Amino acid sequence: VSIDASRRLRADAARNSERILHAARESYAQQGPDVPLDEIARRAGVGVATLYRRFPSKEAVARAALDQCLAEEISPTIDRALGDDDPRRGLVTLLEAAMSMAGREPYTLAAAKHAGALSPKISGPFLDALTRLARRAQQAGLLRADLVPDDLHRILVMLLSVLWTMDLPGDGWRRYVTLVLDGLSPVGASLLPPAVPLSRLLRQENWPT
Amino acid sequence: VSIDASRRLRADAARNSERILHAARESYAQQGPDVPLDEIARRAGVGVATLYRRFPSKEAVARAALDQCLAEEISPTIDRALGDDDPRRGLVTLLEAAMSMAGREPYTLAAAKHAGALSPKISGPFLDALTRLARRAQQAGLLRADLVPDDLHRILVMLLSVLWTMDLPGDGWRRYVTLVLDGLSPVGASLLPPAVPLSRLLRQENWPT
Repeated sequence: VSIDASRRLRADAARNSERILHAARESYAQQGPDVPLDEIARRAGVGVATLYRRFPSKEAVARAALDQCLAEEISPTIDRALGDDDPRRGLVTLLEAAMSMAGREPYTLAAAKHAGALSPKISGPFLDALTRLARRAQQAGLLRADLVPDDLHRILVMLLSVLWTMDLPGDGWRRYVTLVLDGLSPVGASLLPPAVPLSRLLRQENWPT
Repeated sequence: VSIDASRRLRADAARNSERILHAARESYAQQGPDVPLDEIARRAGVGVATLYRRFPSKEAVARAALDQCLAEEISPTIDRALGDDDPRRGLVTLLEAAMSMAGREPYTLAAAKHAGALSPKISGPFLDALTRLARRAQQAGLLRADLVPDDLHRILVMLLSVLWTMDLPGDGWRRYVTLVLDGLSPVGASLLPPAVPLSRLLRQENWPT
């Protein structure tokens, strides 16, 4: 094949992958995390053989779907949040992006979790950015000084747990982000009892789910 | 049998039940919610036949173990909290009692949940007391005025979720009760986004787990 033709084939393949992963995310949203692959292929409008060629297993689809989701929704927000002049606002932006993603695609996360695809490599950049913004906000006197990085992880766990108390999708979670952030204000902050380490499991996975 | 003898038999039976349920709670704590009944009988020092006579199924044990746990740890606290002159302190007492119980006996709750034994009849008095104390605290200006009863339910969900981020038992949860309570203070309270209804499932079960 000519150089042009092979370039065209690669572009077609990339478009197919994109389409399959979007279809996977839609399928999770509508049918839960255990959708069969042929259902995803049908929704993507590709043959099952094409799907298997790109993603040899359910796990591979789930992993790549989470990657796509993070690349589209979280990565750009991390950059924007870190660049914000107001570190507290940056922190809120990042928390809201995570909540919004989890609220719209809870089963993309669940499918990735079942596939063992929630690794520290993926959660790391997000939690790092959260920690950096929190430290800058503390230095600016905008956040209580006694918060430690593990607290941020747990605050995310608490906020995510609220999603399961409401019929999704929707943004009912915003109320609880505001409530919790009021608790993180340095104004009128009570003395905090000591922070205990994260559980062993959570330290390994480093995911707030 | 004489009246005295039958009274003695009834007292023996009640003591046996008490002992079986305490053994069940210890077994859940050490082995998780799916302990076999003969293991519970062994720990209680009674025969399996005796256990089956009082509790015909795993579900019956789990239900009665939760009842015992609530009767010992929550019911007396509800009365004490409602009688507190300071309604905010009463609210804190009640939240702490629930967290302490859930932190020490997470699998008693889990076993009861598996057994379908978490009914509104059981959670009702606790949530009612929480709501009454919150209202009194709001009237006294000790709690933000914009909280609604469903918020209390969700706050409990959030706090309970923190338990799974730490190696139990322990009282690492106290830090997050303090953080969240700071968020419930009327001082510097932000405008809250609207409250959405509890999910259908939660409205049916009325349990914050």
